[in-house]
Amino acid sequence: MTERLDRARILSSQNGVDALLVTPGADLRYLTGYAAKPLERLTCLVVTQLGSHLVVPGLERSAAEAAGVSMPIVTWDELDDPFAIVAHLVGDADVVAVDDQMWASRVFALQEALPEASLVLGGQLVSALRAVKDDEEVQALRDAGAAIDRVHARMGEWLRPGRTEREVGADIARAIVEEGHEQVDFVIVGSGPNGASPHHEVSDRVIGAGEPVVVDIGGTNAAGYCSDSTRNYVAGGEPDPGYIAMLEVLKQAQQAQREYARPGVTAESVDAIGRQIIADAGYGDRFIHRTGHGIGQETHEEPYIVEGNRTVLEPGMAFSIEPGIYVEGQWGARIEDIVVCTQDGLEVLNNTPRDLVRL
Amino acid sequence: MTERLDRARILSSQNGVDALLVTPGADLRYLTGYAAKPLERLTCLVVTQLGSHLVVPGLERSAAEAAGVSMPIVTWDELDDPFAIVAHLVGDADVVAVDDQMWASRVFALQEALPEASLVLGGQLVSALRAVKDDEEVQALRDAGAAIDRVHARMGEWLRPGRTEREVGADIARAIVEEGHEQVDFVIVGSGPNGASPHHEVSDRVIGAGEPVVVDIGGTNAAGYCSDSTRNYVAGGEPDPGYIAMLEVLKQAQQAQREYARPGVTAESVDAIGRQIIADAGYGDRFIHRTGHGIGQETHEEPYIVEGNRTVLEPGMAFSIEPGIYVEGQWGARIEDIVVCTQDGLEVLNNTPRDLVRL
Repeated sequence: MTERLDRARILSSQNGVDALLVTPGADLRYLTGYAAKPLERLTCLVVTQLGSHLVVPGLERSAAEAAGVSMPIVTWDELDDPFAIVAHLVGDADVVAVDDQMWASRVFALQEALPEASLVLGGQLVSALRAVKDDEEVQALRDAGAAIDRVHARMGEWLRPGRTEREVGADIARAIVEEGHEQVDFVIVGSGPNGASPHHEVSDRVIGAGEPVVVDIGGTNAAGYCSDSTRNYVAGGEPDPGYIAMLEVLKQAQQAQREYARPGVTAESVDAIGRQIIADAGYGDRFIHRTGHGIGQETHEEPYIVEGNRTVLEPGMAFSIEPGIYVEGQWGARIEDIVVCTQDGLEVLNNTPRDLVRL
Repeated sequence: MTERLDRARILSSQNGVDALLVTPGADLRYLTGYAAKPLERLTCLVVTQLGSHLVVPGLERSAAEAAGVSMPIVTWDELDDPFAIVAHLVGDADVVAVDDQMWASRVFALQEALPEASLVLGGQLVSALRAVKDDEEVQALRDAGAAIDRVHARMGEWLRPGRTEREVGADIARAIVEEGHEQVDFVIVGSGPNGASPHHEVSDRVIGAGEPVVVDIGGTNAAGYCSDSTRNYVAGGEPDPGYIAMLEVLKQAQQAQREYARPGVTAESVDAIGRQIIADAGYGDRFIHRTGHGIGQETHEEPYIVEGNRTVLEPGMAFSIEPGIYVEGQWGARIEDIVVCTQDGLEVLNNTPRDLVRL
C-alpha cells in the first residue's frame, strides 16, 4: 500500500496535482487497504507531496485500524466540520484532485472549504495505477476466474427445461459462494428471447427444451477481486440451426480477439478485430455493445475495450473479451473470458469450453 | 411516482432551480421507482419545468421498462455522448441542480456540457420530499420494524457464552432474511469491551458469561424500506452492577426522548433532551454520537437527530432514537427504536423489551 501511495503521489506531481482526495470506494481500498463503507459521515484520504493522512469519523477509527491502515489517522467528532479538517491538511495547494466517484455534496463542500483551489478529477491518476495489476492481484484474479469456472462446470446440476430462470439463478448464486467467492455480484440467465437483452438478469420465464440460454455470472472473492464469465447452454434438445451458425461466428470473433490482444496494441483495436468478423458475417448491427471492460476490485474499471479508447495495452492489464450477437425476439449469445496481458501475450483466466454446452 | 415528480418540480421552481438531474441511488428510486444499478454507463433523470425524461444506456432500457418507469425513456448507444443528450434535454436552464450522491466525474462532465449553467446541489429538494413518508411508506417501515423485532425475539436461539460474535452474527444474518428482509444491511454484535465501539461489527471474540452484548441489526425488505433496532443482552450470568446502573440511565433517556418527540419540535431538541439526562447522571462524555438518523429507502437519511439540526419535525417523518453510553475497555449500551411522527405524537415501530434481555 505504501508503494501504491508513493506512486500516486509521483503521478499526481507529474500531472500538476498538489493534493489528491479519495473518499470510500475501490480507489480508497486500493490505496489504503481499507474497504470503508459509503457512509454519510466523511472518510477521506488526503495525499499531498508532504505525506498522506486518512480523515475518518471518530466512530470509524477502530474499523480503519482493523484494516491495517498504515498512515496517520485523523478523527473528527460528531460536531466537527470534517471538510475544514481536510482543508487544513491540503494547505495552500493550488490544484486539488478528487476521486471520480466522490459524491457531489462533497465536491461542493470541498470547493467551499478550499475557495482558492482548483478542483479537478483525479480518477485517472488512480485508475492508471489500478489498471496494471501486480503479481498478487493477478493471482487473486486467477483464483476468482478458476472459481467461476467451477460454477460453469456444474451448470448441468441446475439448468433444465421446465425450471424458471430465477430458480436456476438462485442455485447458481449459492454455488458462486460455495466455489470461492465472498459475494455474488450478478447472475444473468437469459433463456430464448431473453438472451437478446445483454443485461437481462433473471425472470420467471420457464426454460424450454432446445432453447439457447446465455449464462453470465460473477462474484468477488475474499481478496476483493472479481470474476466474470459468460457461456452458452442448451438443455433437453437441439437449438435452431440459425442460432448454431451465429454462435460459430461469435466463437471465431472471440478467438481472434484473444489471439490478437497483447501489450502494445490499443484497446480499440481489440474491439475492431472482433467487430469486423461479426460484421463480415452479416451480424454487424447485432453486436450492440463494446467488447469488454477492465476488471479488478471492481467488475467494470479501466481499460474499456471500446472504439475510441486508444489506451495501449500493457503487461498486467486485466479485462474481459466478450463479444455478443443479439437477435431480438429470438435469442442471443455472448462468450466472455477474463484475460491478463503478460509480457508478450495473454493469459486467459477462464477455461471452460466456449462451444455451445449441451446439457 | 407522478405525484412525487410533480412535487419535485414545484419545489425546484420555488427554489430557483430550472432543471434537476438525478443519477442512480435512492433519490432516483424514490422519484421513478427504478432501482438502477450504479453502472459506469450514465443513467440520469432530467426534470425540467416542461417535463421529465429518463436517459438510460440502450442496454438498460428493458430494465427501466420492467421497473415501470412512467416517463419517456431516452436511450443512448455505446458511442454516443450521454452528457450531450442530457444537456439537450436541459436546454437553456440557468440553474441546474444535481443529486447529492452524483459522482464527481459526472458533475464535471455536466459542467462541461452545460458551460453556461450554474450547477448547485439538489439533494435538499428530494430529501425534503423523502423525509416525509406517505401511508404506503410508513406501512413498509412498519413491516420492516416488525420483521427485525422478530429477529431480536429469537436471540436466545443463538447468543450463548462460548460462541464468537461472528458465529452469532452469521445466525442473525440468516434470520434477518428469514423474517422478512431481502437484504442484510448490517449486523453488530459487540460483546464486553467491543460494545464500547458503536460501529464495531463482529469479531472472533468469544462471548463470555455475564458479559453485556450490544446487538444492532437491520435489513431492507422487498418494498425497499429499511429496519434498524438495537437491544442489549447478557447470557449465562449477571453483568457488573455498574453496567446495570448505566443501562438504567440510558433507558430513562431514550424513554424521555420518545415521550418528547412529536411534530412541531426541532430535531436537535430531541437530541438535547436525552443528552441532558445522560449528562446529569455523569455519563455526558460517554454519549459520543448523535441521537439518530432518518430512515426510509436508505438506513441513514434526513432528518438527522443531532445538535445544530433545527428542522422542525412533521407528521410522516421517520427516524431512529438511539442514545448510547460507551465505557472504553469495559462495555457499551445502546437502545434504538425507529419511530414515525403521527399527527400529534409518535408511532414506535420497534417494540421488543428495552430492558437488559437475560438469556
